[in-house]
Amino acid sequence: MEIVRRVNSMKEVSRQVRAKGRKLGFVATMGSLHHGHLSLIRWVHEVSDVVVVSIFVNPTQFESGSDLEHYPRDLSRDVDLCVAEEVDYVFAPTADEIYPPGGTTIVEVQGISDTLEGASRPGHFRGVSTVVLKLFEIVAPTVAAFGRKDAQQAAVIRRMVRDLMLDVEVAVLPTMRDDDGLALSSRNARLSEEDRRSALAIPRALEAARDLANSGQKSAARVLGAAREVLEAEPGLELDYLELVDGDSFEPVTEVAGERTLVVGARVGSVRLLDNVILAG
Amino acid sequence: MEIVRRVNSMKEVSRQVRAKGRKLGFVATMGSLHHGHLSLIRWVHEVSDVVVVSIFVNPTQFESGSDLEHYPRDLSRDVDLCVAEEVDYVFAPTADEIYPPGGTTIVEVQGISDTLEGASRPGHFRGVSTVVLKLFEIVAPTVAAFGRKDAQQAAVIRRMVRDLMLDVEVAVLPTMRDDDGLALSSRNARLSEEDRRSALAIPRALEAARDLANSGQKSAARVLGAAREVLEAEPGLELDYLELVDGDSFEPVTEVAGERTLVVGARVGSVRLLDNVILAG
Repeated sequence: MEIVRRVNSMKEVSRQVRAKGRKLGFVATMGSLHHGHLSLIRWVHEVSDVVVVSIFVNPTQFESGSDLEHYPRDLSRDVDLCVAEEVDYVFAPTADEIYPPGGTTIVEVQGISDTLEGASRPGHFRGVSTVVLKLFEIVAPTVAAFGRKDAQQAAVIRRMVRDLMLDVEVAVLPTMRDDDGLALSSRNARLSEEDRRSALAIPRALEAARDLANSGQKSAARVLGAAREVLEAEPGLELDYLELVDGDSFEPVTEVAGERTLVVGARVGSVRLLDNVILAG
Repeated sequence: MEIVRRVNSMKEVSRQVRAKGRKLGFVATMGSLHHGHLSLIRWVHEVSDVVVVSIFVNPTQFESGSDLEHYPRDLSRDVDLCVAEEVDYVFAPTADEIYPPGGTTIVEVQGISDTLEGASRPGHFRGVSTVVLKLFEIVAPTVAAFGRKDAQQAAVIRRMVRDLMLDVEVAVLPTMRDDDGLALSSRNARLSEEDRRSALAIPRALEAARDLANSGQKSAARVLGAAREVLEAEPGLELDYLELVDGDSFEPVTEVAGERTLVVGARVGSVRLLDNVILAG
């Protein structure tokens, strides 16, 4: 496995891979790899010849310097995991490589970037779409996999790829969970034992909503009510948003009809947690 | 020569060209081709194996429906000219092909897009950078040529390519002029004979500025004053802006030192005219 630090070196690698007609699979990460990332890497291995994993804590998608500063980082552990997964290249650039001085270009998926998670974190999705476009231009993947846990991020990226007619297939793969049901996230490392007990209200709430929808309940208000009840019973958790949306536009919907996504954003202590479940009406 | 109407067909063409390791040269136009465009096409021929010319009047870079409506269009004449220039492919998509319903993604080069021409035409350069990125993704050129007449547009595109790390070489080629000195522009067709006489104050003003700079005058105020005097003596011309800028950032400068660009934007009747000259201090 090779660790690539420079944009130009990475471009040269992908040029060579593509010149040979080989499929390049890509997983973009901010490091602190967990089983969710590993499941993406394994899937990408199945569908491509060469696997690239980027590890880059993207400053432009953090609202506050403090959240950026506290974001967990452990490159040598991440590299070990990539070696074990038989990743071909780890692309781990510095911030200056990705954002050279004087750069001012942004990519924004308007509308969907301003709602829910975007409303709570102004500029967040603009940072995501800008860096993902850059990474796509540098790595030039045939296929790229993202986790469904960040459902709105995945929707932003899919829409960007479609709108800008990028030549990459985007796959959105199921959320991985710990045995207790909590969705895997690099931020979970910052939860105390007590925080974690509070956080478990999230998967319980999603399950309550899914059970109700599965029983035939079509009303978004009712389904959301079932989830809200569970969340509000947990004093250690501060709910930010809970909404039933169309999975493509992230516009709120009033009925469980077709494929809908129930999304939740919350804080436990200083840790921001996201989760979602697909409800089929 | 082949006329390509669909995004997917154009992508397939460029995939095949690039798979053979051939260089693809690209000239993006809004049609109404004149000798300025033809000089770009000829240059691109010299440096590439396959030449693609796009003809697309991009709605998102027009501020008013009226300017968009009155923009001259003559596809069959343009196609004849491309045949004569031995262009390999004309890419002439519909607006719906480039902007399918539901698309909301924009690309913006912040800062430079808001000044001078960008200040006079809010949203103009956002429309330019968004469509040029899309065209680059679709056509996947090795090299793309733009005219220096639209100096700020060229600077926006060069910065976008650098910032987003796009794999395309951007060439900015000299402004072509009619014998009377007027910079070639598709909009010139809308000038009456009298308008045209008024418009000629623009190249005269640029020449006055250049002569003064060539004589050793370093002061931007003095050089601009010489140009302004010529422009203000022409009652048929309404000056919008006249500025000496750094050719990369388009920030105003106070001295002719290194390579500087003197840019002018003006109206004659209902026709907007741009021109510029490089001054070397």
